[in-house]
Amino acid sequence: MQNIIEYNSWDKNFKAPFGALKFDEELMINVKVNEGYNVESISLEINKEDESKTIILNEELNNNTLRKYFYCKVGKFDITGVYFYYFKVIAEINGEKKTVFYGKNRENGYTCEYNYNDINKYQITVYRDFKVPNWYKEGVLYHIFVDRFNNGNRNGKVDNPKKNSFIYGNWDDIPMYIKDNRGDIIRWDFHGGNLRGIINKLGYLKKLGVSILYLSPIFEASSNHKYDTGNYKKIDPMFGDEDTFKELIDKAKEKDISIVLDGVFSHTGADSKYFNMYGNYDSLGAYQSKESPYYSWYVFEEFPHKYKSWWDIKTLPNTNELEKSYMDYIIYDKDSVINKWMNMGIKGWRLDVADELPTEFIRELRKELKEADNDSILIGEVWEDASNKISYGQRRSYLLGEELDSVMGYPFRNNMFSFLKGEINSYELSNKYMQIKENYPEESFKSNLNLIGTHDVTRAKTELNNDIDLMKLAVATQMTFEGVPYIYYGDEAGLCGDVDPDNRRTYPWKNEDEDMLNFYKNIIKIRNKNKILSSGGTEFIYTKNDNVFAFIRFNEYNDRILILINRSNNPENISLNIEGNFIEEIPIKYNLKNINKNIQIENNELKIHMDSKSFIIFSVF
Amino acid sequence: MQNIIEYNSWDKNFKAPFGALKFDEELMINVKVNEGYNVESISLEINKEDESKTIILNEELNNNTLRKYFYCKVGKFDITGVYFYYFKVIAEINGEKKTVFYGKNRENGYTCEYNYNDINKYQITVYRDFKVPNWYKEGVLYHIFVDRFNNGNRNGKVDNPKKNSFIYGNWDDIPMYIKDNRGDIIRWDFHGGNLRGIINKLGYLKKLGVSILYLSPIFEASSNHKYDTGNYKKIDPMFGDEDTFKELIDKAKEKDISIVLDGVFSHTGADSKYFNMYGNYDSLGAYQSKESPYYSWYVFEEFPHKYKSWWDIKTLPNTNELEKSYMDYIIYDKDSVINKWMNMGIKGWRLDVADELPTEFIRELRKELKEADNDSILIGEVWEDASNKISYGQRRSYLLGEELDSVMGYPFRNNMFSFLKGEINSYELSNKYMQIKENYPEESFKSNLNLIGTHDVTRAKTELNNDIDLMKLAVATQMTFEGVPYIYYGDEAGLCGDVDPDNRRTYPWKNEDEDMLNFYKNIIKIRNKNKILSSGGTEFIYTKNDNVFAFIRFNEYNDRILILINRSNNPENISLNIEGNFIEEIPIKYNLKNINKNIQIENNELKIHMDSKSFIIFSVF
Repeated sequence: MQNIIEYNSWDKNFKAPFGALKFDEELMINVKVNEGYNVESISLEINKEDESKTIILNEELNNNTLRKYFYCKVGKFDITGVYFYYFKVIAEINGEKKTVFYGKNRENGYTCEYNYNDINKYQITVYRDFKVPNWYKEGVLYHIFVDRFNNGNRNGKVDNPKKNSFIYGNWDDIPMYIKDNRGDIIRWDFHGGNLRGIINKLGYLKKLGVSILYLSPIFEASSNHKYDTGNYKKIDPMFGDEDTFKELIDKAKEKDISIVLDGVFSHTGADSKYFNMYGNYDSLGAYQSKESPYYSWYVFEEFPHKYKSWWDIKTLPNTNELEKSYMDYIIYDKDSVINKWMNMGIKGWRLDVADELPTEFIRELRKELKEADNDSILIGEVWEDASNKISYGQRRSYLLGEELDSVMGYPFRNNMFSFLKGEINSYELSNKYMQIKENYPEESFKSNLNLIGTHDVTRAKTELNNDIDLMKLAVATQMTFEGVPYIYYGDEAGLCGDVDPDNRRTYPWKNEDEDMLNFYKNIIKIRNKNKILSSGGTEFIYTKNDNVFAFIRFNEYNDRILILINRSNNPENISLNIEGNFIEEIPIKYNLKNINKNIQIENNELKIHMDSKSFIIFSVF
Repeated sequence: MQNIIEYNSWDKNFKAPFGALKFDEELMINVKVNEGYNVESISLEINKEDESKTIILNEELNNNTLRKYFYCKVGKFDITGVYFYYFKVIAEINGEKKTVFYGKNRENGYTCEYNYNDINKYQITVYRDFKVPNWYKEGVLYHIFVDRFNNGNRNGKVDNPKKNSFIYGNWDDIPMYIKDNRGDIIRWDFHGGNLRGIINKLGYLKKLGVSILYLSPIFEASSNHKYDTGNYKKIDPMFGDEDTFKELIDKAKEKDISIVLDGVFSHTGADSKYFNMYGNYDSLGAYQSKESPYYSWYVFEEFPHKYKSWWDIKTLPNTNELEKSYMDYIIYDKDSVINKWMNMGIKGWRLDVADELPTEFIRELRKELKEADNDSILIGEVWEDASNKISYGQRRSYLLGEELDSVMGYPFRNNMFSFLKGEINSYELSNKYMQIKENYPEESFKSNLNLIGTHDVTRAKTELNNDIDLMKLAVATQMTFEGVPYIYYGDEAGLCGDVDPDNRRTYPWKNEDEDMLNFYKNIIKIRNKNKILSSGGTEFIYTKNDNVFAFIRFNEYNDRILILINRSNNPENISLNIEGNFIEEIPIKYNLKNINKNIQIENNELKIHMDSKSFIIFSVF
């Protein structure tokens, strides 16, 4: 049966403005009635957790089409939040008065009928307006896992190895965990990357086109990853000291590169100044005594052996983030962790496991951060759509303007790989991206971290079965997409690697995949040279070809760049309706193959021949 | 019932000469008949494997005692070997003629009656006379596990680490194996000791009093221990090169220190030039092809995956030692393994797992070795009494003059620790040592390696529960005993350690136990200054005190040194019958306590007061 009403939240004729709504913005909703239906009333039903309100839509006749439509203007929402809505339609059908519910089509913005209990609602994110600094939104981020990036010491000496630890015999040895029979890690393994090593490679990073460096944790800790903080106020001695770090910040700044640190606040290490389980610190740790100044930071179920810990890993005791003395230490104190490192000149933080941090903790941390430097940014580790994430039974408010500027874009990666591996088609891919775009505040989408790899997932190259062509398509998409491209160190040099620890292999200095490296350099150069790519809007294109994904980036002057990605093993022919008189291919030197330049424009129809597994970037005038 | 006959193989009145018999020596056996017995005949029954012979003893009356005795002279034995004997006595007992069998008392040299089927026979080792060079017999050996002794590189750099290996973060990190779930070693761990490190410490070793350096294997191999030889003709690049090794030999020689290498010929590494399982060598390995020049060195049950290997460890394929091309390569070739390294100036070899090497292989190797340098020595790894060892169903002939000069003295260690830990008393300890002394050719006993620790057993200090006093008693015994004292690197510096790999901790440079180190230096000095200790004979003394073990070392001029060891927690008073008019304590500076010098001599009775857990060394004139 045909729908009684017509609605599409992705179409501004039905819903304006598109997507998330600023707190003080008016929302216009239009619902058309399809021909042949006799509708008595349509109401907009809006819910937010256990609140709900009903807005009866006004009825009007469109004189041009002689079709009825219903509309309403929704004024300011009372409060920021994630709202959900659907339509309740009362209509006469076959002479009977019926109530029918219309929610969101599961695939795109169109509507469809549901039983009341199953309604898939539309989401509308209502946020307090915020601005993410341009240096971040328009930047290119590079993620360094410090132990594995570069050892800056002459002759490869490793500074201050930990007691009873292992150093890999060679820089290119494959990482592994050293575990006992029970699977517990019993010795930590290090390659010896350090801050001096990053300083030495700033020139390389600059040439690559990077403008933001996100460093995995650098504070003293037992492990190689340092998510088990030992001392929030001390650089790990294997990595360097404060002088070296200051030098890194300053020299990076000279190259317009900003430094973002990893803040791990949901837990500390058991081997820390605060918990001090092994007595390695000269402080009185919470594990050692109830008289410890840090005792209240932790949750002991039975002192001292039973305590809450992250994923039940006993070396990572959970913190009571909202405990006053903890918040003072991390956030409020003049020399708090946040302030100490901000004062040194870093430009922001990435909050590890943001889902495990209380909302109030994130908000207070953000306030302090922005007070220290209003041009700084706060990133959150959220793996899913961060606009409607529920963690520990609570709907999170990450993107509502008072918490995160940016989140880790795992959905970008997962959807891209699904497409490249043939699990979804180009239309489905567009829809998935559109869904994120609809749900996220504009600033959030523009600062979303479009990643294809991190230290927590299989490397892109391995995920794509070492298919270099597909890898390049993923990178081309990432580098032309709206949001901040996120490069996981070494991906640009051809590193492969399965899940942790294999994804933490060392950067292959002097053994780089030069072809891939040049590809990265060129595509990043294209992004950095074309402001449309780093700051424009996005329109996804329906290509009518399952294998070809396409989108347009545009600016306020209607300058446009068209990106086409053909994942297929075969050449594909596409025709698109594109307004524009002149189309010029943006040349990328190390493209997959010689692009067949056979482009024809006929009756506003753009006909393009694409080689197998290729991409083309066009400027449209 | 009293024995019919009296006999004691440890008493020259009954058996002369004492102990093992040279091939061309005459043996005199005397058996006394106890009073009141009417003996018809006594025969000496001699067996060797499945041969046997009977010698009827001559009967005579001792005019002084009016007691009968039986005697015989046994002429040259047909062939060297380990012979066993007992006595068959035909006597009239209670008017009946009976046959009674007398074998060896299980504890000492006396005889006792046995049922025919259970006779514990006397052993007589008949050997071809041989001389072990004095430099060895009178030396002090120091065993270096190369990776753990000393890194001679400035700033601790480790040369040429193996691919996918680990270097300990710190020199004093505790060793461990890196294994997978199945318990297989998956990565090798190194501390980075090397030949340069040994060169740098020759001065230290000289001061310690060492004259022989036995090095754990130094040829190229994957592991840290290098018992998995990769190339018999190449120094492992982590250890150094031939030039460095030559320098070590030469500089050691300047200090009168001889170098002995570890020869591992029962197997090679799977990762070797010869087997080449992983293709790491550019040779054609036996694992790779039946056409390999090394194919015949190995025993394939099913090519290439099933092959014989040492203790079924697949990384250690067994060799066909008697295969001609293998013997050529190891022994006969002009540049054979033996010749190559002998020509460089080493003074001998220690044969790893001698029990697994065919007799012919050992004999041929010895011949080649002595031809290259008649002043060289061959040591065998044998864990038990090497005079009568049966391995793989075959009685071994190690000590018969054509094979080993010296063996690893594990019995010395085991018996000593049994005594110090109170499991056996001083009399039992003497008997155990006497048994070895009786069974071994004189030269073998004089060159027996008196060890208290090696890389294959718990360190002495740990074995003795970190009791420093007992440790010093073990060392004092070792350093005053007949045979070659064997120091396992680091024992002198206070290293402790459980079984492998814990017993392979690094030498604690700058963190030595100075008290222990000085004790070692002083006791070795005493040995080296008193030729009686390094070359004299031994008489064990029955102290009539379970806790006090005593023995006398003597020379041909009847100069004597008396050694007393009190293991007890309590002071002990001893009286001994010692001929001699003057007794002087040899002072050892870092002795346990102030020795109570309360010594009295009354009627040839020496009365000595000993402090708890102490030892005293006397010169007797």
